[in-house]
Amino acid sequence: MQIGVLGTGVTGLTIGSKLIQLGHEVMLGSRDEANPPAVAWAKDQGQHALYGTFKNAAVFGEIIFNCTLGSVSLEVLQQAGAENLKDKVLIDTSNPLDRSTDMWTLTVCNTDSLGEQIQRAFPETKVIKTLNTVNANVMVDPAKLLEKTHVFVSGNDIEAKATVVRILRDWFGWREIIDLGNIASARSVEMYVLLWHTLRNAISSQRFNIKVVTS
Amino acid sequence: MQIGVLGTGVTGLTIGSKLIQLGHEVMLGSRDEANPPAVAWAKDQGQHALYGTFKNAAVFGEIIFNCTLGSVSLEVLQQAGAENLKDKVLIDTSNPLDRSTDMWTLTVCNTDSLGEQIQRAFPETKVIKTLNTVNANVMVDPAKLLEKTHVFVSGNDIEAKATVVRILRDWFGWREIIDLGNIASARSVEMYVLLWHTLRNAISSQRFNIKVVTS
Repeated sequence: MQIGVLGTGVTGLTIGSKLIQLGHEVMLGSRDEANPPAVAWAKDQGQHALYGTFKNAAVFGEIIFNCTLGSVSLEVLQQAGAENLKDKVLIDTSNPLDRSTDMWTLTVCNTDSLGEQIQRAFPETKVIKTLNTVNANVMVDPAKLLEKTHVFVSGNDIEAKATVVRILRDWFGWREIIDLGNIASARSVEMYVLLWHTLRNAISSQRFNIKVVTS
Repeated sequence: MQIGVLGTGVTGLTIGSKLIQLGHEVMLGSRDEANPPAVAWAKDQGQHALYGTFKNAAVFGEIIFNCTLGSVSLEVLQQAGAENLKDKVLIDTSNPLDRSTDMWTLTVCNTDSLGEQIQRAFPETKVIKTLNTVNANVMVDPAKLLEKTHVFVSGNDIEAKATVVRILRDWFGWREIIDLGNIASARSVEMYVLLWHTLRNAISSQRFNIKVVTS
């Protein structure tokens, strides 16, 4: 499958590499066509690994991953172009974080979320929020953790959500996937990220996740 | 030990009953001295179970549990009286929830928390935020869940936090307790409660909790 990955930070590179391993054709999109990390990544990953602008990656991808920082996601998606995202599944892994101080805060929360903002700005795109609750290494390899843990999906389009559940399960190895509901439930997973951050500091590791345990 | 429990909702009654079982003397505090649920509870629980006003319960308790709704916690604590809470450990289980719509929101979040507001309003009280991430039944009996799960503590006073950790472990049976840091970390556990709520709806149960799984 042809997949567009927006963002060339750790998340974009990690997801891009995993998708290449799985045999897909991946184009990493960035602000500048020849973004150095993307160029280096493509050289390293072989012929199925491509790079280009956000727009190029959006045109290329049958499915799009948003792996940009939440603070720039809306602007990046505008650059990618609504017409190039139309009718496509957009897997939104971003968090609306302000990390300028030790105490992280969110730039939108409580009565709205970045997932909802993106869905409102791109009404013809099928936005599914997921994977934002874990570090990039855990996203693509949850089996590295000592036990099975949970990942969440939020989105309005039922078919798109089913597609993303298959991707999480069959491509990335997630076994425990909870459908939280429509895109408004993105609020809850974005707000969880502050607990993720205090936990990261408390346990001095980014390689962890939560497991929902019932009675 | 003499313990004051502020609030006569499910959380106050459940914690009060558990403390009685453990052999403590418990006074439930409410707005009116003869609050019907508190009167019925005391009758049911025997001679060590008492009831009174918020102020009575604060005077009575060597340790105080705040089990009131977050929306009224500050006002209740003012009624209890700063002089009666002075130098005491206040175990704050409350959440600043607005539950007036299906989609819960918080009345304070992101750059502040109810835990911090209480600590600022009562600087001579040792506020420890904990247990707000689980339902009342799980608070006092975490062993009911299928696996050991985590509970969190946030607070500025190290000794008070150690006291609360002992209470959680020795009285309530918690085995996995994570110290998240000072009272500002209450933001993260209060904001998590929206994920608790979407999970509750998704799995149709209130009897669950999260376990932090590492690699």
